[in-house]
Amino acid sequence: MRAAMFYGSHQPLKIENVADPTPETGQLVVKVAACGLCHTDLHYIDHDTPTFHPPPLILGHEISGTVAAVGPDVVDFKEGDPVILPAVLPCRTCAMCRSGRENICENLQMYGNHINGGYAEYVLAWADHTFHLPHSIPLQEGAIIADAITTPYHAVVHRGRVQAGQSVAVIGCGGIGLNVVQFARAAGAGRIIAVDIEPSKLEHARELGATDTINAFEVDRVDSEIRFRTRGGVEIAFECIGRSDTQLTAMGSVRAGGRVVFVGYNPRPVEVSGARVMFRELEIVGSLGCRPIDYPRVIRLVEKGIIKLKELVSHRVPLEKINDGFDLLREGKALRAIVVP
Amino acid sequence: MRAAMFYGSHQPLKIENVADPTPETGQLVVKVAACGLCHTDLHYIDHDTPTFHPPPLILGHEISGTVAAVGPDVVDFKEGDPVILPAVLPCRTCAMCRSGRENICENLQMYGNHINGGYAEYVLAWADHTFHLPHSIPLQEGAIIADAITTPYHAVVHRGRVQAGQSVAVIGCGGIGLNVVQFARAAGAGRIIAVDIEPSKLEHARELGATDTINAFEVDRVDSEIRFRTRGGVEIAFECIGRSDTQLTAMGSVRAGGRVVFVGYNPRPVEVSGARVMFRELEIVGSLGCRPIDYPRVIRLVEKGIIKLKELVSHRVPLEKINDGFDLLREGKALRAIVVP
Amino acid sequence: MRAAMFYGSHQPLKIENVADPTPETGQLVVKVAACGLCHTDLHYIDHDTPTFHPPPLILGHEISGTVAAVGPDVVDFKEGDPVILPAVLPCRTCAMCRSGRENICENLQMYGNHINGGYAEYVLAWADHTFHLPHSIPLQEGAIIADAITTPYHAVVHRGRVQAGQSVAVIGCGGIGLNVVQFARAAGAGRIIAVDIEPSKLEHARELGATDTINAFEVDRVDSEIRFRTRGGVEIAFECIGRSDTQLTAMGSVRAGGRVVFVGYNPRPVEVSGARVMFRELEIVGSLGCRPIDYPRVIRLVEKGIIKLKELVSHRVPLEKINDGFDLLREGKALRAIVVP
Amino acid sequence: MRAAMFYGSHQPLKIENVADPTPETGQLVVKVAACGLCHTDLHYIDHDTPTFHPPPLILGHEISGTVAAVGPDVVDFKEGDPVILPAVLPCRTCAMCRSGRENICENLQMYGNHINGGYAEYVLAWADHTFHLPHSIPLQEGAIIADAITTPYHAVVHRGRVQAGQSVAVIGCGGIGLNVVQFARAAGAGRIIAVDIEPSKLEHARELGATDTINAFEVDRVDSEIRFRTRGGVEIAFECIGRSDTQLTAMGSVRAGGRVVFVGYNPRPVEVSGARVMFRELEIVGSLGCRPIDYPRVIRLVEKGIIKLKELVSHRVPLEKINDGFDLLREGKALRAIVVP
Repeated sequence: MRAAMFYGSHQPLKIENVADPTPETGQLVVKVAACGLCHTDLHYIDHDTPTFHPPPLILGHEISGTVAAVGPDVVDFKEGDPVILPAVLPCRTCAMCRSGRENICENLQMYGNHINGGYAEYVLAWADHTFHLPHSIPLQEGAIIADAITTPYHAVVHRGRVQAGQSVAVIGCGGIGLNVVQFARAAGAGRIIAVDIEPSKLEHARELGATDTINAFEVDRVDSEIRFRTRGGVEIAFECIGRSDTQLTAMGSVRAGGRVVFVGYNPRPVEVSGARVMFRELEIVGSLGCRPIDYPRVIRLVEKGIIKLKELVSHRVPLEKINDGFDLLREGKALRAIVVP
Repeated sequence: MRAAMFYGSHQPLKIENVADPTPETGQLVVKVAACGLCHTDLHYIDHDTPTFHPPPLILGHEISGTVAAVGPDVVDFKEGDPVILPAVLPCRTCAMCRSGRENICENLQMYGNHINGGYAEYVLAWADHTFHLPHSIPLQEGAIIADAITTPYHAVVHRGRVQAGQSVAVIGCGGIGLNVVQFARAAGAGRIIAVDIEPSKLEHARELGATDTINAFEVDRVDSEIRFRTRGGVEIAFECIGRSDTQLTAMGSVRAGGRVVFVGYNPRPVEVSGARVMFRELEIVGSLGCRPIDYPRVIRLVEKGIIKLKELVSHRVPLEKINDGFDLLREGKALRAIVVP
Repeated sequence: MRAAMFYGSHQPLKIENVADPTPETGQLVVKVAACGLCHTDLHYIDHDTPTFHPPPLILGHEISGTVAAVGPDVVDFKEGDPVILPAVLPCRTCAMCRSGRENICENLQMYGNHINGGYAEYVLAWADHTFHLPHSIPLQEGAIIADAITTPYHAVVHRGRVQAGQSVAVIGCGGIGLNVVQFARAAGAGRIIAVDIEPSKLEHARELGATDTINAFEVDRVDSEIRFRTRGGVEIAFECIGRSDTQLTAMGSVRAGGRVVFVGYNPRPVEVSGARVMFRELEIVGSLGCRPIDYPRVIRLVEKGIIKLKELVSHRVPLEKINDGFDLLREGKALRAIVVP
Repeated sequence: MRAAMFYGSHQPLKIENVADPTPETGQLVVKVAACGLCHTDLHYIDHDTPTFHPPPLILGHEISGTVAAVGPDVVDFKEGDPVILPAVLPCRTCAMCRSGRENICENLQMYGNHINGGYAEYVLAWADHTFHLPHSIPLQEGAIIADAITTPYHAVVHRGRVQAGQSVAVIGCGGIGLNVVQFARAAGAGRIIAVDIEPSKLEHARELGATDTINAFEVDRVDSEIRFRTRGGVEIAFECIGRSDTQLTAMGSVRAGGRVVFVGYNPRPVEVSGARVMFRELEIVGSLGCRPIDYPRVIRLVEKGIIKLKELVSHRVPLEKINDGFDLLREGKALRAIVVP
């Protein structure tokens, strides 16, 4: 099959022919319909962030497709079934998995990191870690459920614990932030203040449910502006970029007793005021990915049209041009690009 | 002023002239724009349920209006302000009030029960227990926020704790049940199964967000049907009628670990299987009214159009014909009727 | 090996020689040090409650022992290691297991019910469902951790959610109730009212941490007495017998907003006042067994002496006399009896 | 009466005669039995931290005493009653108070900060903000319940949410940290690792329930040591000093999904790794004081001997020598010193 091989950082992926995968007991081979291009992959390519499996490796962890072959003892899937593969495979035996927190499994495996991923024609999968995709959800766009949609679900529902009528700020309206907006609206937030520096992204945020927008270039301080508009601050703020300054903005945006959710990956430290955390009893919580057990809930919300999907896929790239696709990410142009083998 | 006086059970309200209320320190006089007709009032009239304040008393606890006069030391309100009055006045000093549960205040006072209510031209209110009604919410229909809308908010958000993507059953689609449907949708429930015996109510439930409906006359057992459709049961069931058989249906509708919320008032006992509660770790929880502190959240959801209001007011009755209005309730004809003085 | 075989209800267990178990991949053979005699087993013998595995079957699910043989691929255990076996084996793949609720696993297997149990010299076990028992915990008494101690842990910590300083009632001070008392004390309950009809059990409850006791024979109504002593009711009540009347007592014992935990198995229905549940916003929750993932916590509490163990084992019965042991249970004489092969 | 007056920072308190307070409606005058010397007061004296009420002011917020006079309409107290005064007076009308979070009331008043405190012979109090002290609790030592004991209660129960069997680290074993140890033990923590640099404090921590101690001078890195001893980290860490380095230690001490509670006041920023917060889904939460509504729970735990009190009062200082008392604090000598007028 054709695959985009990762041979190490600071070099483009190499499109070449590799052996087709073969399913063993409990496994599936999935013919990839689409695989999302994610900043996580870009990190492996551009920085020296190592993958857990040494190169050569096929990257890509947002995968939809159809079952191409089933191994022995697979009963729930048959050839041709449309499916999505959750980005991660929890071990199900560690204390985290067994306490309802399989997204922070101690032995987590990830497609395109510990095992071969979806930048290829076929990918090897495990039946009991695979979800059927309803026919009403478009197969290619369905790919982005596996990270871009589910990560915000987890952030909003389990970490932000947004309740109907609450007020929320979303700092950063890229691929993750916009979907945090969507899920905050789905969870009934009464006020959703979206913050970015790109008017087009703020416009997009409005379409997806933001009730207010702030262009960070147009105000002195975003946190003061949010506190002013809400008379004291929002109840929950989501930082979706991964920068120290915007994490501070998020902390400055919440009222007493408020919760701040770090969704974006920030490689640098952030200078937190411990006094403010204490005096206002703030809560700062991290959010990582999504429990695969929550995928059926998310799929249902997409199926019912409560969560929009098609609008979010801005670019489609053939596998052979995958390196051009990463250029789109580098330039910040793509909302969400998918590779279509 | 004109008022509909309650002189005791088993007799119609008597429309007569009574003295206008005068505001003392911290008080307001509110010119009633509308007051909802509620089954609670009907209970006082038709059964021997006593009010806490002995008759004569003005009933009615779902009140909207405009400020007609302000007493000394009132700063947040001025004449002409549109307002709604929460159905209940918590004491704010008991252990319940101080633990975030003011809806089950140990010294709760209720309009039209402990003090005069809204079936009159004017009603005496307390400024720090009164909420501004935004101009974008129609004044008359705003009345029903004070019970018909807020009670379901509390049931769905605080007692059912519905999360985005969860599955829900709503047993009974009268005034309360339909709004439980609305709030379950607002909270992002992925599946909302509405149950009633009236096709028109089920149709209404669909319009307000139900994804499935079941006419209880058309199936053998509603609980089996719900378990069948959901492969094991919903995660949360709301009983909104107040009957022992439908409470059992609710209990039979949830999956292992499920939660059943009793929203309807049932004067009779219900035969619960303690073994089922234990083996499936069910949770049966009561839901009573709504914390006034949550009114701003609900008002915001109405303002944003997330919760519909106008569609729910089916009948308008002049104060002089209030007894005819109660006939509508007795006949089960009104979705929600309001008295307009 | 010698084993007590169950051939069906209404007949004594039959002590006979059966084949020794052999461990396959991932399995252990455990030489039984002790196995608790539990009312669950008595139900199979005396009533027509069927076991999931048809007889002949070896009953018994509270097992401690030492590893006698290890199958291939077992790395965490070696011959001679002291161990306890949790009463149940969750599947780890169902939605319950993956949501932190493995005690209500949809495919739960139980020793002495779905598979052979501990009323024998040896029992076959699974390494990744087995826990090391520290040497400081006596091996024979350690057996009762596997149900009599862990079930109350779950009831108090996860279902009752007892906080330091709260008030608690424990209805019934048999093997389960006494340990609910112990864990309520361990969790810092400020007031623990123990209820029973046997002075010796109440005395035992006091020794294990009850601050008050009520002999149900000596008061008119236990619930009124509890409400009187606590000025309104306890915050959490545990019913540990499994009778409809005592379940009603538990419900009558809690204050507004209170929680009632059904720990005892009650085969009969209980007539609940839905109105009281609603008006006082009560919560009635079931409690079933304990998540194996919580065993290390419980073992640590026993090891630290926070939870007492030795005091709770009142009788020791040799395997050959196991039917006499069940007589002790029938007569209500045993606090906890263990079979020692 | 004699009182120690605060005239501004950088000068000793001045002992002088001032007018006795007189109770108005709902008020009490309390004859001070003891008032704890707290670092909060030292901050006003030594740094430029302003009090909310401009000087002259009587400091002191940990007050026990007996009722000396009652104002009109006071029914729950009579002359001679032993009482304690919570450190803070919540407004009971703001959104925080009405959501069960009166400790972060938006209009919080504090003795010795907004109003006169307890470094005097008498103090003016409000009956409905005052608690009876049972005769079984020594009157003078009872003073420290009002902050040194209740603040840790809140930190452990509401912010740390310690469950029976969990593992806990307590960084810093001064007056607050030692009581966090006490409450962690009362809440049933199975492992309590106490950290300090003073052997005597670690010894004290052991007496109060710590299962492990670490002298920070004796290990390379405290967080590595804690992770090593617990195979991955504790579930909850409490920082009780208020330093940036120890706050980092606390963050480094918890396992994936762990919670870090900031109890100590740290005026400087702390450099948090946002990436670690995200990847391990940590929770960093502040803890401020204690809700007065929780005082009865804490009083009960002291009464039952579950929480020790007498052992914690290390020094007694007469009012006239209060400035010497503050020297004890400056030198870090006092565990808890109380002023006895």
